[in-house]
Amino acid sequence: MPRWEPHAPQRLEQAALDLFTERGYGETTVTDIAVRAGLTKSAVFRHYQDKREVLFGGDTAEGLLSHAVSGAPADAPPLQAVARALDALGTDVFTSERRAFVTARRSLIARTPELQEREALKNLASTAILAEALVRRGAPHMTARVAAQLAALAASIAEDEWLREPSTDFARTARQVLADLTHAASALSA
Amino acid sequence: MPRWEPHAPQRLEQAALDLFTERGYGETTVTDIAVRAGLTKSAVFRHYQDKREVLFGGDTAEGLLSHAVSGAPADAPPLQAVARALDALGTDVFTSERRAFVTARRSLIARTPELQEREALKNLASTAILAEALVRRGAPHMTARVAAQLAALAASIAEDEWLREPSTDFARTARQVLADLTHAASALSA
Repeated sequence: MPRWEPHAPQRLEQAALDLFTERGYGETTVTDIAVRAGLTKSAVFRHYQDKREVLFGGDTAEGLLSHAVSGAPADAPPLQAVARALDALGTDVFTSERRAFVTARRSLIARTPELQEREALKNLASTAILAEALVRRGAPHMTARVAAQLAALAASIAEDEWLREPSTDFARTARQVLADLTHAASALSA
Repeated sequence: MPRWEPHAPQRLEQAALDLFTERGYGETTVTDIAVRAGLTKSAVFRHYQDKREVLFGGDTAEGLLSHAVSGAPADAPPLQAVARALDALGTDVFTSERRAFVTARRSLIARTPELQEREALKNLASTAILAEALVRRGAPHMTARVAAQLAALAASIAEDEWLREPSTDFARTARQVLADLTHAASALSA
């Protein structure tokens, strides 16, 4: 059997979203997803650890975030370095081409507790990845954890805004929210 | 049948922890937990929505946190109000009486992906509850979300420290970490 599977992740995530929406998450098997995508069950497991993960892109988001932070100029302070991760989300995830997919995915997650749990865990993992990338750049531990957490919160607030208002530029909004959150944090100790 | 079930939540959480540890999470049923606790299956569902939830105290933690924040003096700023929630965790959760339980629970979660996912979702819910309690006290939205997030992060770091070092006073440590995190956040925008 040839292993040439062009766009396998995109075909699998669309197939999973469609099937979970049509039949429900619990009623869809990994084999169903593979068949709908025109692939084999083992192709699914080459890309994802389990059924839920198909909707969360495997390790793609973590890699994207880590790479973005590492790629910031060496002298960029932590806040500028994590803002690069927000830019990367705007370029790769929250794009106009992906709007229909991301919107349908959000609505599916909102009504599927199993997916909410996986998303919560993925968000924790992404925040940890950001913090680790900052520590590798020399940021103190506490600073890294705070900056990563504020960036994660900014991404979440900007995603809501982007979903609500199609003309939203995700990266610009997320950077503005990050600045607002950091300002609010400074005011806390005043 | 009498409904008098003294200490049912405590008996159920201990039974769940013991069975998950002995047999594994996947191999334990709700009925197993009920029998071990000397209760009925319907008693479990009177207290918890599902099997995982037995280990996470149902809505207890959310109620504790919300109550603590609401009970802070009306003129207490957001950071002092969330510090009350950290105090409440020190009084009710991270106590010397509960050390054996909390330690065994942490180790079980660390090796059980299903429990990690539920914990991640519970932490999100707790953070949202803290933010809502601050908004009800009149805090601006961004301020509330940042203060809640910093408190959640402080609780998590203090829990690690409390687990590592038995002489740790949870509340005092968590308040110190919260101050350190807020300081780090202020420095971010400098």
